[in-house]
Amino acid sequence: MSKGPATKDMILESALRTVSRLGLGQLSIGGLAAEVGLSKSGLYAHFQSKEQLQIQILEKAARRFIQTVVAPALSQPRGEPRIRALFENWLTSWSQASFLPGGCIFVAAANEFDDNRGPVRDFLVRSQKDWIANLSLAAQIAVAEGHFKVDLDCDQFAYDFYSIVLAYHHFSRLLQDPSAESRCYTAFENLVASSRETKQSI
Amino acid sequence: MSKGPATKDMILESALRTVSRLGLGQLSIGGLAAEVGLSKSGLYAHFQSKEQLQIQILEKAARRFIQTVVAPALSQPRGEPRIRALFENWLTSWSQASFLPGGCIFVAAANEFDDNRGPVRDFLVRSQKDWIANLSLAAQIAVAEGHFKVDLDCDQFAYDFYSIVLAYHHFSRLLQDPSAESRCYTAFENLVASSRETKQSI
Repeated sequence: MSKGPATKDMILESALRTVSRLGLGQLSIGGLAAEVGLSKSGLYAHFQSKEQLQIQILEKAARRFIQTVVAPALSQPRGEPRIRALFENWLTSWSQASFLPGGCIFVAAANEFDDNRGPVRDFLVRSQKDWIANLSLAAQIAVAEGHFKVDLDCDQFAYDFYSIVLAYHHFSRLLQDPSAESRCYTAFENLVASSRETKQSI
Repeated sequence: MSKGPATKDMILESALRTVSRLGLGQLSIGGLAAEVGLSKSGLYAHFQSKEQLQIQILEKAARRFIQTVVAPALSQPRGEPRIRALFENWLTSWSQASFLPGGCIFVAAANEFDDNRGPVRDFLVRSQKDWIANLSLAAQIAVAEGHFKVDLDCDQFAYDFYSIVLAYHHFSRLLQDPSAESRCYTAFENLVASSRETKQSI
């Protein structure tokens, strides 16, 4: 990388860590500049506005999410094994990642931006819809592979999957509930079991 | 009410509406003072600090939650009817309430304060734990009434119930998904069905 992109990447890396704890809305250009050892105008040379910076942080997070959660799952066999991998990668590699000391940046941003309008919210909605569509598609593949029952409502499966991980975020981070991880696994296993092909006697 | 408490209540009512949209962290004493037609020092006469104001907003919300969601459910028959009432009151009377134009203040605050320390977070954690314990208790009563199976994990039931309403908040507010309400109802019906007494052949 030439110096420009490398510096930009280093800024985004630091910003991602900060907003994971504080939220995108609390991001201060001055604070971030001090953190990465640049002047405020030096920072503005890389990002034209606070909004542009917020979007690029979310874009970086989305790329990292694909690398960490989605891509490794795609190397697993189609169907239930891939769904298990998506779940486990989300739970361990993503939501407990060292680069996200405050937990999933998308969950935090969702609550910050749900009543806003503008390009940050638009990016957030697009990336969330992509993830949910991916979950629904993974369930459709599991149906096609004969792992899940043919009449499974795959969009409902995506809603239920997402519910479980949102609750994990809540129980583990705010409530610091030591049973959050086992509750989350139990809920996931129940969801998978109820999605499986019903054995029919002939 | 004497003038003091009435004014204080009017301030909290206005503040509750504002923080539902913007979040507790974005609450500005100056903005709130202007909104209610008081000077900043007039506002500080009622609340000693921003933190005290934030806690009293949450206390007001918690009382309103009990009036709106919990108390009406307690007038329903014990067991499954009461659980249905808790769910429906949460979904309609609470999360779509006109006094919460930005949706559930506790869900929003959870994400703002999960990485903080201090009395605001402490209050939030206590009130959330109370609500989750209430859900678990409602499930225990449904077991005692014979509506739910005897080996139901009632704390898991509370986690699953909470998951469903968290996802509703996310799908309806951020994603503006028109199917959010029907997905939420379906998830709830599935949870109730899987919690019911398993019929055993003798």
